[in-house]
Amino acid sequence: MTKYVYDFAEGSKELKDLLGGKGGNLAEMANLGLPVPPGFTVTTDACRAYLRTGDEPFGLADEIDLHLERLERQAGRRLGDTADPLLVSVRSGAKFSMPGMMETILNVGLTDTTVIGLAAQTGGDERFAWDSYRRLIQMFGKTVCDVPGEQFDRALDAVKATKGTADDLGLDAGDLQALVTTYKEIFTAHTGRSFPQDPRDQLDQSIRAVFSSWNAERAVLYRRQEHIPADLGTAVNIVAMVFGNLGPDSGTGVAFTRDPATGAPGVYGDYLANAQGEDVVAGIRNTMPLQDLARLDRRSYDELLAIMAKLETHYRDLCDIEFTIERGKLWMLQTRVGKRTAAAAFVIATQLIDDGVIDADEALTRVTGAQLAQLMFPAFDLAGRPERIATGIAASPGAAVGAVVFDARQAAEVAASGTAVILVRRETNPDDLPGMIAAQGILTSRGGKTSHAAVVARGMGKTCVCGADGIDVDVDRRQFTIDGGHVVREGDIVSIDGTTGSVFLGAVPVQPSPVVRYFEGALSPGADPLVAAVDRLLSHADKVRRLAVRANADTFDDAARARRFGAQGIGLCRTEHMFLGERRPLVERLILARTGAERDAALADLLPLQRADFVHLFQAMNGLPVTIRLIDPPLHEFLPTLPELSVKVALAESRGEPDGHDRALLDAVQRMHEENPMLGLRGVRLGLVVPGLFAMQIRAVAEATLACREQGVTVRPEIMVPLVGAVQELEAVREEALQLLRALGVDARIGTMIEVPRAALTAGEIARAADFFSFGTNDLTQMGWGFSRDDVEGAFFTRYLELGIFGVSPFESIDRDGVGRLVRIAVDEGRRTRPDLHIGVCGEHGGDPESIHFFHDAGLDYVSCSPFRVPVARLEAGRSAVAASGSDTR
Amino acid sequence: MTKYVYDFAEGSKELKDLLGGKGGNLAEMANLGLPVPPGFTVTTDACRAYLRTGDEPFGLADEIDLHLERLERQAGRRLGDTADPLLVSVRSGAKFSMPGMMETILNVGLTDTTVIGLAAQTGGDERFAWDSYRRLIQMFGKTVCDVPGEQFDRALDAVKATKGTADDLGLDAGDLQALVTTYKEIFTAHTGRSFPQDPRDQLDQSIRAVFSSWNAERAVLYRRQEHIPADLGTAVNIVAMVFGNLGPDSGTGVAFTRDPATGAPGVYGDYLANAQGEDVVAGIRNTMPLQDLARLDRRSYDELLAIMAKLETHYRDLCDIEFTIERGKLWMLQTRVGKRTAAAAFVIATQLIDDGVIDADEALTRVTGAQLAQLMFPAFDLAGRPERIATGIAASPGAAVGAVVFDARQAAEVAASGTAVILVRRETNPDDLPGMIAAQGILTSRGGKTSHAAVVARGMGKTCVCGADGIDVDVDRRQFTIDGGHVVREGDIVSIDGTTGSVFLGAVPVQPSPVVRYFEGALSPGADPLVAAVDRLLSHADKVRRLAVRANADTFDDAARARRFGAQGIGLCRTEHMFLGERRPLVERLILARTGAERDAALADLLPLQRADFVHLFQAMNGLPVTIRLIDPPLHEFLPTLPELSVKVALAESRGEPDGHDRALLDAVQRMHEENPMLGLRGVRLGLVVPGLFAMQIRAVAEATLACREQGVTVRPEIMVPLVGAVQELEAVREEALQLLRALGVDARIGTMIEVPRAALTAGEIARAADFFSFGTNDLTQMGWGFSRDDVEGAFFTRYLELGIFGVSPFESIDRDGVGRLVRIAVDEGRRTRPDLHIGVCGEHGGDPESIHFFHDAGLDYVSCSPFRVPVARLEAGRSAVAASGSDTR
Repeated sequence: MTKYVYDFAEGSKELKDLLGGKGGNLAEMANLGLPVPPGFTVTTDACRAYLRTGDEPFGLADEIDLHLERLERQAGRRLGDTADPLLVSVRSGAKFSMPGMMETILNVGLTDTTVIGLAAQTGGDERFAWDSYRRLIQMFGKTVCDVPGEQFDRALDAVKATKGTADDLGLDAGDLQALVTTYKEIFTAHTGRSFPQDPRDQLDQSIRAVFSSWNAERAVLYRRQEHIPADLGTAVNIVAMVFGNLGPDSGTGVAFTRDPATGAPGVYGDYLANAQGEDVVAGIRNTMPLQDLARLDRRSYDELLAIMAKLETHYRDLCDIEFTIERGKLWMLQTRVGKRTAAAAFVIATQLIDDGVIDADEALTRVTGAQLAQLMFPAFDLAGRPERIATGIAASPGAAVGAVVFDARQAAEVAASGTAVILVRRETNPDDLPGMIAAQGILTSRGGKTSHAAVVARGMGKTCVCGADGIDVDVDRRQFTIDGGHVVREGDIVSIDGTTGSVFLGAVPVQPSPVVRYFEGALSPGADPLVAAVDRLLSHADKVRRLAVRANADTFDDAARARRFGAQGIGLCRTEHMFLGERRPLVERLILARTGAERDAALADLLPLQRADFVHLFQAMNGLPVTIRLIDPPLHEFLPTLPELSVKVALAESRGEPDGHDRALLDAVQRMHEENPMLGLRGVRLGLVVPGLFAMQIRAVAEATLACREQGVTVRPEIMVPLVGAVQELEAVREEALQLLRALGVDARIGTMIEVPRAALTAGEIARAADFFSFGTNDLTQMGWGFSRDDVEGAFFTRYLELGIFGVSPFESIDRDGVGRLVRIAVDEGRRTRPDLHIGVCGEHGGDPESIHFFHDAGLDYVSCSPFRVPVARLEAGRSAVAASGSDTR
Repeated sequence: MTKYVYDFAEGSKELKDLLGGKGGNLAEMANLGLPVPPGFTVTTDACRAYLRTGDEPFGLADEIDLHLERLERQAGRRLGDTADPLLVSVRSGAKFSMPGMMETILNVGLTDTTVIGLAAQTGGDERFAWDSYRRLIQMFGKTVCDVPGEQFDRALDAVKATKGTADDLGLDAGDLQALVTTYKEIFTAHTGRSFPQDPRDQLDQSIRAVFSSWNAERAVLYRRQEHIPADLGTAVNIVAMVFGNLGPDSGTGVAFTRDPATGAPGVYGDYLANAQGEDVVAGIRNTMPLQDLARLDRRSYDELLAIMAKLETHYRDLCDIEFTIERGKLWMLQTRVGKRTAAAAFVIATQLIDDGVIDADEALTRVTGAQLAQLMFPAFDLAGRPERIATGIAASPGAAVGAVVFDARQAAEVAASGTAVILVRRETNPDDLPGMIAAQGILTSRGGKTSHAAVVARGMGKTCVCGADGIDVDVDRRQFTIDGGHVVREGDIVSIDGTTGSVFLGAVPVQPSPVVRYFEGALSPGADPLVAAVDRLLSHADKVRRLAVRANADTFDDAARARRFGAQGIGLCRTEHMFLGERRPLVERLILARTGAERDAALADLLPLQRADFVHLFQAMNGLPVTIRLIDPPLHEFLPTLPELSVKVALAESRGEPDGHDRALLDAVQRMHEENPMLGLRGVRLGLVVPGLFAMQIRAVAEATLACREQGVTVRPEIMVPLVGAVQELEAVREEALQLLRALGVDARIGTMIEVPRAALTAGEIARAADFFSFGTNDLTQMGWGFSRDDVEGAFFTRYLELGIFGVSPFESIDRDGVGRLVRIAVDEGRRTRPDLHIGVCGEHGGDPESIHFFHDAGLDYVSCSPFRVPVARLEAGRSAVAASGSDTR
């Protein structure tokens, strides 16, 4: 028979699936011999059974009987004993922490009769006893019976008003006893029955309520947002109550074994005398620093410090704890591995190495690429104490400052005039896209991490704070109002922090990231403990990682920066970027050429420019490989758009002022127009159809190589053919390229993008003609799913994230089941044909932590990402290697 | 050691890979005891070795020695014997017939001395001997030594001119002897050496020349066009010469064992007395019907008839043969299974059943869906003997009549005025597309089956004759000139036959296909032997096939026709077709709706219309399944295009006459504009984003089902969700649909298109929520290859076919390696999840013969195609079943 209930003595943190995080950790502490109040845990199995059938599973009641008896024996008190009653707390505890999402009921066991016993038990503290009872009725009413909480709040306020006090402490035992009567009346009015006077009945109903809370709407939403599976269920912890509000020798506190903000060593926490945990959370009274406890209760303080040291040694990490002191006796109520800031994560991980607690491999598992990325954003300098006017959801990181605007058109206009703007909306929709593009940052008052604003901003890499519900946006009056009533008008300056969710009035100075300054060589590792930690962990990642890290870069500056950031080569140089700006007229000539001679002339003029581009790139990457992708986009992308040009020509002709060049251009644009240019004449197709185009580029690579060779620069060129779907395409280009290269005496690897699904499906064939593969996971995702990022991200991703069709946008993290399967097929079958095939990825996924782990597992040789993501990729590549070798325990 | 040479006695037709078609069949005849001149075959192995290394493989020369000796013994003559010389022919013979593509050298063995012997041998026929010698020099010179053929022709013409004769027969032995001298001089002038006087040297050089001819440009082009693998190589046949030109008791002929045009029983052929084979081919003299040979040489005639009967029994099929009678002695020079017209194929196959030669299964392997499709096109009625003015390549079947136009713009204009047009161009390019769309047919003077015109016309299903090099197109003067000088001007009527390649002057009457009239019920099977044969073979196909055949149809008429053509249900009803025409304003209202209520109102107005559509469809398909696909295309497809509307609004506004509705429409079009609509908000995405849209359609299906039920019509509705890429999408729609259907008391299968690569890759998951899969192979091809048919077919397919990247457009026949692999993955993994999963295909490939075999092999349950292709699909499904069971020998 399934066992549904575990005493703390029977559990451990390894049983988190069954006992939840809280229950597992309570058991762990109990087994370490720490002072944990007696208690037991009802398992997630029981919860799942309950949710499935709507009833407690068979045997659960008996097991609870048994464990309750044991608890009573350990506590030396019995539930419902009128003279010396046992009280218990009933708390949810799921495998993954869901803070504030689920339910707690304290003081279960109090009734009209046991409340008297409680008073006696606490030395005649009647005020305490009645206060505890009214809290039970309130929590039980709200949680178990859905009584609207504000009815209780209103009754409490009424009593306080009558007594002329603003504070609960102004009420005496009589007031509270009267309040209990009122509360019971509220309970009965709402539920149609009296408040249960059988403590066991209270307990059972509470357990059921906790089970049900798993499917409360806010819990469902939270899980969806945090990608927590919906079918785990919660455990329920039943623990003997201890009280921190029994006088000045009682109290309650929270503590961390190190500073969770900076990682600085030494305990860190808050203590509140004569209070219960919820009072600390509510922030009604000011807490004191934990160190002050030493003055009040040296014995408990020393015991606590010893316990914290023991916990850190045991958990081998920063722990946070909750504790209560009841009349001089210390009780541990909770512990877990503590959350920390990104900076603290790095600092603590290196400290733990130095402390001999973990090794460098494990230290890598304690930090993430996402944290490192966070540390690389500029941050606001808060030294001037700017006025924080609201806090929202940190939806897309960065620090943005600008003038407030309220619609897309204005955003575009003001931005065009050179003024930085922040677009403020209640929520955004696809019509706001131009405004979002123009703005420095986006601020909304509604919507979460999967709202349109959040999804699109992240896609653009633009700072965004969303769901700042403290502001009230009035687009018609072009202003928003802050909670306090302050009004921010169009044109006022605000600063928004997409990393923390803070919104400040005025322009807050922006500080460059010290980590970036270190990468740039402007700061030495020794100058700052955070930088030292980052340097140390990155060095270790470099040592252990199997994946090489390259950068996507098209210019000398980008390439040089990438190299400073640790790139081991260029994995993608997009040559089409070299066709823009002042070279556009040349490209226009190429496209409008009516004869082969005209076309050849245009190409001949492009050759020296392209050659010079490559020379610069090769110089920046002296000694490292540089992958040059032949031109990819359709040629008409270099011409004006069809609607734009159609209107221009139609208007000019209606005025009787026709323009011959525009008309010729329009003819070309019409001729070359494609309904779906992404699926049109581009990439290798272009190369095979437009004579001389690829040859010009290949010649430019070869000539640049020769020029660099003369300067003593070592060049390792790799020529990459885009959009190949069949080996014959690649063979045709390869043959032409090899002839050209041989004629010029230049050696280069020739390979292909794998970005068309068919290329992955026939990779075994394609490998015959390729020295390397580079996955273009953007296109592979677009074609694999059949959607174009530009067109759909704003249009339906929000809805898809809401529906749970995506956990995360497949453009952010690679879709392992679909697109990832294509990657694995291509790697396996490509290598089967050619065991030495060099394989990398140059899509944006190359810089995404989740995806990097996948690429490591799939057996790639390198990832290539934007220069700024190179350190993140180095770190995650190291983490992947360590995780694959089995020491990642999270 | 590899054996490189086979005597005829050692070979057989089963060794075609090694001996080629000609060699295998010669051996077969020899082994049947038929009178074949002695000879042997050098294998394709030898050819491949030669092509690889540039040299004869080791041992080949010795083997030739050996077999030559044997040949000499059998022939009773020796090569180079000055008194009684042996002459041989050296002919290529590949596995697949490549008519006229490769090389033949006759009379090998003649030299300045053996020519005398030959004269003696033939009873002093000196004229014959010198004529034979000069032919050898000419053929050897051209074929082996690349001497330009026209030099010989000119010399011959000069002699004829001198003699005042137009005919070779006007030359006597002396003239020919002199010509031999001239020919040898030409030979020496061109090659720098004298004509070889060693017969064995002649033979070896000839064999090498035949080897090399495999890679001649025209052979390479031909193979590419016919999809013959490039690495097979050719065999070489060395056969003792026999002569049909030794007098009136000699002659040569070709014959078929049945009429290859109609399939009528009885031998059929031509005979030319006192002539060689090449004279028949050249058509210099008129041949006589084979039957007349009975009068000339009864013995040979009877022997020939007996041989032909024996061959047909042996080959169990229509054979064609070449024979020569040398002074009353019959020699068989070649046989093979004969080519025939589509009609003959059907008639002969059923005759052979009746003759007890083959069974019905095998008869199915003797006809093809392509032949049946050909028989279903209307054909020109040639009874009026219309004037054929040119013949080109039959590039896309059909019979089209119209006025000649010479450019796309005019084609569109004239066609818009209601006049049928034929677009005539030298060759077409993407600019001609609008004209090709407007025209009834396309005629070009250049380009082959893979030219732009051919590829695009086939894609459109439009009649096309291309490469009609007998016409000279002059676009500027708007006319074309025919070989004879006749001029056809713009507006003149022509008739083009895309099935035969014929071009006629004037309007040729078009006859409906008797096969189609039979399907339509207008002709009984007994009325016509062809119709009887088609009926019989289709019935057998229906009996043996495993694949069901459904039709893609959206209207009552299409559905009813499909049913008459044998469809077993509707596999695809495209509901978006129901949103066009007069319903467009309703769709506009739906799109422009500003509130949920406006949208609901528009949907409510569409509901009864859609319901009525379904009622009609269900009535036509009473008792058969009908698959209804929920709306697929992006909504903006129902609005005007962006350039069009932009110009309209800009012009109106520049005139100061703004139109509010147009402006609102433009705003909507701009808002909804997608760069790549194929990869945009369509299919299931639309259904999940636009509330009520799918629900309206599902409700219409359910209500139509109920309405039909009341009329006693049996409805088997299947609801199909388009563009699914993830199981969650399907689950969301399925849940909503099931609720609706249950509420209305209607049962329907719910399934999905598999048209996005990811759907195929995750089919195991998707099958959890699907009752059926239907492959949308058009989209699967577009996304798998990453190209959109509309955008690329004209733009680069021609080039790709030329380069051999495609053998055939992947939109015509399914790409087995890439897209087909996705199909197999989806079938296997879908069925693993759900063994009873019903699987079909509704892309255009469902009607393509090649693809149908693939779908049979992949294990599909049905194919669905356009109504007109249903009989083709039935036939090919039967053929697939027979082929899979192993009796297809081709």
